[in-house]
Amino acid sequence: MEADRLMMQIDFIREIDKLKHVYRQTLLMNGSRHENDAEHSWHLAVMAMLLKEHADKEIDVLKVMKMVLIHDLVEIDAGDTFCYDDEAKVDKEERERKAADRIFHILPEDQAWELRNLWEEFEGRSTPEACFAAALDRIQPLLHNYYTKGQSWKEHGVTSDKVLDRNRPIKECSQTLWNLAQEIIRQSVEKGYLLP
Amino acid sequence: MEADRLMMQIDFIREIDKLKHVYRQTLLMNGSRHENDAEHSWHLAVMAMLLKEHADKEIDVLKVMKMVLIHDLVEIDAGDTFCYDDEAKVDKEERERKAADRIFHILPEDQAWELRNLWEEFEGRSTPEACFAAALDRIQPLLHNYYTKGQSWKEHGVTSDKVLDRNRPIKECSQTLWNLAQEIIRQSVEKGYLLP
Repeated sequence: MEADRLMMQIDFIREIDKLKHVYRQTLLMNGSRHENDAEHSWHLAVMAMLLKEHADKEIDVLKVMKMVLIHDLVEIDAGDTFCYDDEAKVDKEERERKAADRIFHILPEDQAWELRNLWEEFEGRSTPEACFAAALDRIQPLLHNYYTKGQSWKEHGVTSDKVLDRNRPIKECSQTLWNLAQEIIRQSVEKGYLLP
Repeated sequence: MEADRLMMQIDFIREIDKLKHVYRQTLLMNGSRHENDAEHSWHLAVMAMLLKEHADKEIDVLKVMKMVLIHDLVEIDAGDTFCYDDEAKVDKEERERKAADRIFHILPEDQAWELRNLWEEFEGRSTPEACFAAALDRIQPLLHNYYTKGQSWKEHGVTSDKVLDRNRPIKECSQTLWNLAQEIIRQSVEKGYLLP
């Protein structure tokens, strides 16, 4: 029984190695290549450690870290959906739910449900932890876009009002990070990285 | 003051993007390319969540997760030192200490010391958390080597006694994971992935 449990955990650890092959629209900060979901998730977890003090409400940082570490696992099956691609977004929810059904349930049942619930909470964005995790998931690519002079924005003809809309949820959990996001967007337009 | 603090945190978040360019000897589990330190650190943090129940002593999993997320940051300056390269190991400690002096101290002082102390604790391997983090840091590449049929071991002519030695610290914090490691090594020799 114990050995079975460990083997299920190892199978899952093997399966999620595939996240290192899921590439995002975001470029690394030196612009050399696209970022993958595993690197992105690592970056968010470190950001959670460092930026938790800017959350407006008390948050459980361990929960936020767990959330961001696993929030993109469904993309192993569902692929990365570009946040400014309205067409691809149509069936995103269905694709991701199907992926969640398969991937999390490689684990022993209790852990499958722990991760599944964390993912559902992240998607629901209604708890302080989920809201803060979502804020980090917006701030990080914003920084990547800013430091690469808007390369990915330019490629897709993204405008500042779209970026503001995408980042607005930050406001609900951190006034400080929302101010930062607005300032980055303002400077990006000023410097010509982002269409007004 | 508050704005300065946030800018120091953002500078650090920008700096550590470089970890995504530090490549290890380990190959991804499908053998397609080398793994980088950011992906590796992400994988360890998820493993910490899932495998903590196999620690022989009670551990603070948040501390283990923080440790594994930041344990390789010094390699941004010091580079990856292959664990079976005895020559490169000679000045590893000095190179990494110098890197720690620079990198962690981009952060506000309290956070610089929090991360620095976590790193020193990881390196010291004398607390249950540091021991468990070190165990994960050994089990993960062992799995990668096993699933790629020992490609990286073969390239460097690594023998099973070297791999056993490298993994022996696992024994100090998890009998279950140590049994697993021994079994993987045994099967690797049997299948011809690893020199006896």
